[in-house]
Order: sequence, then C-alpha cells, then structure tokens
Amino acid sequence: MPEKEMEKFERERKELNKLLMKRANLNMNRFMNVDSQAYKRGALSAKTKELLGLVSSLVLRCECREDEVTTEELVEALGVGLVVGGSVTIPHIRRVLKYWDELQGTGNEI
Amino acid sequence: MPEKEMEKFERERKELNKLLMKRANLNMNRFMNVDSQAYKRGALSAKTKELLGLVSSLVLRCECREDEVTTEELVEALGVGLVVGGSVTIPHIRRVLKYWDELQGTGNEI
Amino acid sequence: MPEKEMEKFERERKELNKLLMKRANLNMNRFMNVDSQAYKRGALSAKTKELLGLVSSLVLRCECREDEVTTEELVEALGVGLVVGGSVTIPHIRRVLKYWDELQGTGNEI
Amino acid sequence: MPEKEMEKFERERKELNKLLMKRANLNMNRFMNVDSQAYKRGALSAKTKELLGLVSSLVLRCECREDEVTTEELVEALGVGLVVGGSVTIPHIRRVLKYWDELQGTGNEI
Amino acid sequence: MPEKEMEKFERERKELNKLLMKRANLNMNRFMNVDSQAYKRGALSAKTKELLGLVSSLVLRCECREDEVTTEELVEALGVGLVVGGSVTIPHIRRVLKYWDELQGTGNEI
Amino acid sequence: MPEKEMEKFERERKELNKLLMKRANLNMNRFMNVDSQAYKRGALSAKTKELLGLVSSLVLRCECREDEVTTEELVEALGVGLVVGGSVTIPHIRRVLKYWDELQGTGNEI
Repeated sequence: MPEKEMEKFERERKELNKLLMKRANLNMNRFMNVDSQAYKRGALSAKTKELLGLVSSLVLRCECREDEVTTEELVEALGVGLVVGGSVTIPHIRRVLKYWDELQGTGNEI
Repeated sequence: MPEKEMEKFERERKELNKLLMKRANLNMNRFMNVDSQAYKRGALSAKTKELLGLVSSLVLRCECREDEVTTEELVEALGVGLVVGGSVTIPHIRRVLKYWDELQGTGNEI
Repeated sequence: MPEKEMEKFERERKELNKLLMKRANLNMNRFMNVDSQAYKRGALSAKTKELLGLVSSLVLRCECREDEVTTEELVEALGVGLVVGGSVTIPHIRRVLKYWDELQGTGNEI
Repeated sequence: MPEKEMEKFERERKELNKLLMKRANLNMNRFMNVDSQAYKRGALSAKTKELLGLVSSLVLRCECREDEVTTEELVEALGVGLVVGGSVTIPHIRRVLKYWDELQGTGNEI
Repeated sequence: MPEKEMEKFERERKELNKLLMKRANLNMNRFMNVDSQAYKRGALSAKTKELLGLVSSLVLRCECREDEVTTEELVEALGVGLVVGGSVTIPHIRRVLKYWDELQGTGNEI
Repeated sequence: MPEKEMEKFERERKELNKLLMKRANLNMNRFMNVDSQAYKRGALSAKTKELLGLVSSLVLRCECREDEVTTEELVEALGVGLVVGGSVTIPHIRRVLKYWDELQGTGNEI
C-alpha cells in the first residue's frame, strides 16, 4: 500500500540523514549549507529553483525534491528532462510521478 | 577577438545543423520536433523552461541555449547546476559565462 | 524464489506505466512514440537495434529491454558495454543476467 | 535490523557474482582480471588505490568497495567526491556511510 | 577545408596514441587488449559490435569509431542513441555525421 | 609547438576564471571555497586528495588538476580511472598525458 511505502521512504531517509550528520566533517557541512542556500529565492523564485534542481537531478538519474508546484508544472518540467536526458530518464520519471501521487492525497490510489 | 569567435561558432553550428538535416531520418526529425515543443510556454513560462533546459544540459556537460533571461537569473540557475552537478561543471559554467559576455559585448543585449 | 521476483517486477512496471500514461502530456506521448519507432526494423534489424538500446542504456546504468537474442549474443553485447563503460557497469550487468536467467525458464535456478 | 540487511546484501552479491561467472565469456574474465590488478600496490599504495576506486565509483553513482581505511580517511575521500560530483552524490554517500556503520557495528571493524 | 581538418585530427590522434603507448603501464596495455578483443566477431558480427561501441560511446558523449556500415545503418544507430541519451547527444551526432561526410568526400568510401 | 599550446591554455584559463569571478554570486564563491578546502591535507595527504580529484574528474570526463605526483603515480591513478570508467575515458587519459608531457618538457618538472 502506497502510504506505507512513503512512510518507509521517509523513515529511511531520516535515518540516513542522521548518519550523514554524525559522520560529516566540517567541509561537508559547508557543502550542505551551500546546497540549501542555492534554492533560496533571489533573482529567480524558489519554485523555479526547485524545478531546476528537480530536472537536473533527474537527468543525472538521482532522487529529487519538489514542492509548491502544480501537477501540470511538474509534468512539463519532467518533459524538458525527458528530451534533454532521453529515454534513460523514463524509469526515474515514473518514480517521481509515483511519489507525487502518493503525496497528493493517497486518495489517488492507482 | 570575441566577436570573431562567436561568428565562427555560429557559422560552424549552422553548417553542422545543415548536415544533421541532410542526414536525419524521419524519426530523428520527429525527435527534433518533440524537442522544440518541449520549450513552448504552457503551465510553465518559456523562460523557466529555457532555464530548465540550460541547467540540465549543464550538469550533463553539454552545449546549451539560453535567452530572455537576465544575468542575475542566469547566474542563479548556473548556481543550482553547480551544487547539483559539482565542480566538474565549472569549466562549462565558465564557457556559458564567456559566451554570455560575448553576446552582451556585441550589442546583442538579451 | 526468482519467479516471484519477476512477477513483482512486472507488476510494478505495469503500475508505473499506467501512472506515466495518466500523467503524460501530449509532448511526452510524442516522445514515447518516437522512442518505440526507433526500434522498428529498417536498415538495421530489430534485433540489432534492441542490442543498441540495451548497451547504451547499460552504460548509462539504466534498466533495459532485450528480446529475441541468444544468450551468447547478449553476453557479447554486454561485453562491449563493459569495456566502453568500465567496471561501474558490473552491478548492472549482474542484474541483466539475473533477469535473463529468470526469463529463461527459471529451469536454470541458480 | 542492520545485520540482517547486510547479510541479505552479501548473499545477493554472492549469488549475482556466481551468475556473472557462469555467463561471462573469455573477454569479460580478462576484464575482471585487469580490474583486480588495477588495485594492487605499485607506485601507489593499495589503500590509495582503493580510495581512488571508491571515489570515482561514487561520482558515477555506483556501488563501491573500501577497506583498510579509517573512518576519517573515508569521510575525507567522500568529501572530495561530494565537491567533484555535486549534491547528486549525497544519496550514495549516505548509503556508503550506512554500510560502513553496519560493518563496524557487527564487530567487523576494518 | 574538411580534408585538412581530418588530416589534422588523424595526426593528433596518432601523436596522442604514441604518448599513451609510451606511458601506459602493463595493466593499461591489458585493458587495451581486452578492448580490441571485445569488437572481434563472435556470436555477433563485427559490424554489430562496432555499432554497439559507437552508440554506447555516443550516449556517454565520447569520440567514437565506425566502419563497414552504410550511411543508413549509421543514421539508424545514431537514432537509437538519440532517443536513449536525449538531446544532449545532438552535438555529438552532428560531429559524427560531419566526420562521416569528410570520410566520404575524400574518396575513403567505407 | 607544445609550449605555445600550453601558454594558450593557461591564458584562456586565466581569462575564464576572471570571468567566473566577475559573475559569481555569493553562493558560488562559497562553493569555490568548499572546493579548495576539500583538497587540504587532513586524515589523507594533499597528494592522495589530488589524485582522488583527478580520477573522479577523469571518469566524469572533465579537465583535471594534478601536482606533486610522480609519473608512475599518475599513470597508476589513471589506470584505476580506466577500469572504473571504461574505454570512454581513453581520449581524456591521452589529453592528461599530453599535458603532463608538456609540463615536463618546459622544465616545469613536477
């Protein structure tokens, strides 16, 4: 059942983050700081930057984050990733959409 | 001198595109069509989509396109690419900025 | 037991495809169409094109498809991927071979 | 529970290796040989070469091997991978650290 | 003029190969050997293997080799690379086609 | 003539760095800082970290830096990159070796 999968995903993520924090040295922590600063609103809105992070992670076939975007915006952003990165991104697009569906309601049981 | 370099770049690009058009089969042409459709405005603005294409190409260390963005927007978008894709993107960021500077220097203010 | 794993894999794949179909916009569907056309027989046989898709996905460390090839042909194709993409493709080659073994009978229980 | 996960990981790895050995052709076996030779001590120590293998696999987002290194050395090596490969390596760093923690927790201090 | 460019390309390649041979250690030479063995005819024809090498190199955005294929076969193989690897492969496809055209223009019909 | 090529390379690099500095925003500068900190000696020597940076950049097919290493150490490090990243790294290994040879030819023995 989707809800359970998401809970498991979140729990594992939290555990792994704790582990990362425990082991990270000073310079890794600085990187994390630079990383989170990069998504703050500036000349571009926070939403645009989230999408930039999402699509560039996608084409590198990595986990990604997204929020405050509509489904249509997400699908269009994924569509740009699809043409830039090719069919190897398809399994990752599927996973993003699945996660998205679970986030949205879990009323949208598929 | 920058202007010459840009002219050379544009001339070569045009030549190579002609070559691609000459050789492309039906399915490649369809791909090109899908590619250009992906950047048309929809739920997201054309500008946001240009930036999505720019940054995802950047992290894959490829040529990229950009227009109708301010320098500040470009630099922030590149900054997202830098943290996502790491220091291996630096030579590519340099090249984008150089190209950008040349565009502005020749009066092609965008 | 392998059979169960394969069934699970196929069920998840189907679910995720349904999700993709539900969410895909017009341009994504066009891409999917271009994608499936690319593997139709033309100057090259369908089998050769399957192998091209398999190996290029492999070196990008992605799921892949293959059919109508013999084990020897598959292993040789994977061997090309191994020298082109290096030892980072090994875990993926392992997975392809495992899936292959499950497809082939599951008489070949290992 | 971690120990179980590690045992499962090791069992699956062994199974997949057996499968690879069963299917590998002559040239694949030669590659494996070249691969293991590359990590033998020479002008560089075996430890330095392990770290080179670890970090280069990391930035390609692949499984990796490591041994005979201290936690501090591992974390610094991962830190180089993080700046070179960017934030897309973070999930993989997390996994390496988790595996590392499990190794140490089971008394398999390395 | 194309011919000159090709001559320059070939001369540089030869120089760089000589350099590689001069510096390569035993294990690198073994790798080169494994590499050339991988393209010898076996269950698959040498031509099919050339195309496998071509397309997998293409999606990794690298130089590539090709011979004994017709233009139509080459274009179809590139087409598979295009859908698998996405629009970031386009500049590389252009370069392959240019090189191809130069080869044919100089009477080196292959 | 090699010396000229190297001078040109260095001049362009300097120009591009100036450009980067001119355009970089605060967060990019922080990244550059994190980047240079990552190569400082700690649990690992500066030399080992240089090699880690070199090989991980190599497998991502990027420019790279190296110093204070002997030719034998460099060749072994490149050899690890070759087996991890496969034959697509060969053109880049050639370029590193060429640059290396030029450095040594101009009396800049390292």
